[in-house]
Amino acid sequence: MAYARDNIIRLDPYTPGEQPRQGELIKLNTNENPYPTLPAVLEAVATVTAEVLRRYPSPLADDFRATAATVHGLSPNMVIATNGGDELLRLAVTVFCEPRSTAPPGAPAGHGGLGVTDPTYSLYQALARIDDTNVTRVALNEDWSLPADLAERMCQAGCRLVLLVSPHAPCGIGRDIDQLASIAARLQGRAVLLIDEAYVDFADANALALLDASSGLDNVLILRTLSKGYSLAGLRFGYGLGHRDLIAALDKARDSYNTDAVSQVAAVAALRHREDAAHTWQAVRDERTRMDQALRDRGHGVVPSQSNFLLTRPPAEGPAAADVYRSLKQRGVLVRYFDQDRLRDKLRITIGTPPQNDALLAALDRIYNQR
Amino acid sequence: MAYARDNIIRLDPYTPGEQPRQGELIKLNTNENPYPTLPAVLEAVATVTAEVLRRYPSPLADDFRATAATVHGLSPNMVIATNGGDELLRLAVTVFCEPRSTAPPGAPAGHGGLGVTDPTYSLYQALARIDDTNVTRVALNEDWSLPADLAERMCQAGCRLVLLVSPHAPCGIGRDIDQLASIAARLQGRAVLLIDEAYVDFADANALALLDASSGLDNVLILRTLSKGYSLAGLRFGYGLGHRDLIAALDKARDSYNTDAVSQVAAVAALRHREDAAHTWQAVRDERTRMDQALRDRGHGVVPSQSNFLLTRPPAEGPAAADVYRSLKQRGVLVRYFDQDRLRDKLRITIGTPPQNDALLAALDRIYNQR
Repeated sequence: MAYARDNIIRLDPYTPGEQPRQGELIKLNTNENPYPTLPAVLEAVATVTAEVLRRYPSPLADDFRATAATVHGLSPNMVIATNGGDELLRLAVTVFCEPRSTAPPGAPAGHGGLGVTDPTYSLYQALARIDDTNVTRVALNEDWSLPADLAERMCQAGCRLVLLVSPHAPCGIGRDIDQLASIAARLQGRAVLLIDEAYVDFADANALALLDASSGLDNVLILRTLSKGYSLAGLRFGYGLGHRDLIAALDKARDSYNTDAVSQVAAVAALRHREDAAHTWQAVRDERTRMDQALRDRGHGVVPSQSNFLLTRPPAEGPAAADVYRSLKQRGVLVRYFDQDRLRDKLRITIGTPPQNDALLAALDRIYNQR
Repeated sequence: MAYARDNIIRLDPYTPGEQPRQGELIKLNTNENPYPTLPAVLEAVATVTAEVLRRYPSPLADDFRATAATVHGLSPNMVIATNGGDELLRLAVTVFCEPRSTAPPGAPAGHGGLGVTDPTYSLYQALARIDDTNVTRVALNEDWSLPADLAERMCQAGCRLVLLVSPHAPCGIGRDIDQLASIAARLQGRAVLLIDEAYVDFADANALALLDASSGLDNVLILRTLSKGYSLAGLRFGYGLGHRDLIAALDKARDSYNTDAVSQVAAVAALRHREDAAHTWQAVRDERTRMDQALRDRGHGVVPSQSNFLLTRPPAEGPAAADVYRSLKQRGVLVRYFDQDRLRDKLRITIGTPPQNDALLAALDRIYNQR
């Protein structure tokens, strides 16, 4: 018999991008940083002794919290370390959203639930379904901007948590920080605004000002991760920044020892050497500018990106995006294809190193010239 | 305002044992293995390159699943890798238990919830409260054995998941495997039985036979961890074994990349060299026998242990257990004290190395002779 809860049985789980074994493939599908991590991180990992592994790690990742607090100009009780950014997202849904079964008769459709834009990072909905909480979707405008009445619609629906990713995934656009502040202010007292800044290291601006006491906001959380900016996707280390009451609530729900001793020392080293990592951010931005133009030169539509990927629409007169995806894969270049509304005519392409990007462009040229 | 759900606001979270900074303390409070981890594990960690860290890890920890399947004589789809055993426990509550708010009028008190013994590992209840699911507690018999009608009481209460730890924590007793099989059979069709074998490496028997097809059981999960037996508490790596349908349901609810690349290679190395780890298990068992007798010689009551700790009651004519705990701490020896029914007159003492155990005994002698 099936022992799982009905919502789990029905669940269509989040599908991560393909993670092929190391090989010949040029992998531009899951937004890793194409450059290696910092020597300081490798040195920190090399210091890990049998004694460090034998003992339980710091439950609160104290050293990391202190380091992140210093780097961001916050206090340590405004920081939570998590097992990748994914854990912070899951914790936020668990802590702030109510199960659907708590809705009283006549409650609005989104009672107690999660609010997201459509499209957005598809993991968000999967997390809501695991906890069987309502999901309210508000469509982005045609130009990928946020609807002016987003906050009001989330409030009317009864959302308790609104998840916005900035720079946006999968389109790459950076959000205006004043607009995010305005949304947070209109949600205040009713819902938490979690700004997923997984890609912020490649952007011109970030939302940290919303955590300043002068903002008057008590409902903002910011997600950061070492996966992209610090080339540490394999390490699973993310963190949340926010009002101390929100952080304290998240802390109650996390697994007791949610981050391990190796990743804690590596994460401390990474943040302490962020100016070295910033060289890779600039290299990615330079290549982003070049690739944006190179794709336009080939008739592609390109969404202006503040991230380390480009959402691009192949030329209408050429093969369909799904076919381009498959042809690229046959030629050893892996990009991301989403078979969903507003995305199935596009590809999401991670910015690689210059030779990787050249290989992608050469493969595209061969595909288009075959016709 | 408070944005968290009411059950989170009310939550008294699980309190891990003290994790003091490295120092002079003899740490016998959180059941770490006193011996260092295997050279093969350190060698595996040393092989981790920047390229491995840069890329996302295997979402399913494929190599580990294959290795664990071989070691335990199962198929890989009967294995799930988790971020410590804690994650498996949390996933099981999320996947198999219903929130309290789903209970129809007249439902039994434990509707859809978790069933545990009293006492048990205190994390279980904290996990249930995070998901706001009911908890049914069935008291252990006076001699710490399981009540004969345990399964019936769990079924009557409406439990969907029963969590038993074997060897038991915090008393250390190993459970009779036939009795566990009988409980699973009586729960079958109504609830999942998760047997938490965190300490099984130090025991004479394990429950793996319940996963054999010949058992006819489809509702058994077994938890294993590398924290104790493999001296890897700092690494956060556990795993679940069970019927493939149960594993598939858990897989739907876990974070996409729940274990990191470093811990995956370390865990594979650990399991491949388990015969080396087994030397430490025997050393702990030898010291357990010695300490059991040494404590009895000092007038302590001792619960017969199949684990790497002893639950012991200081002599009635001496200082209270809480005072012994504090006096030991003043003398640099940290043990665990639980201020709760059936435990507040006892101490839980991890088995250390012979010199650590000697130091504990010497400290006890000084405490008792002061009077």
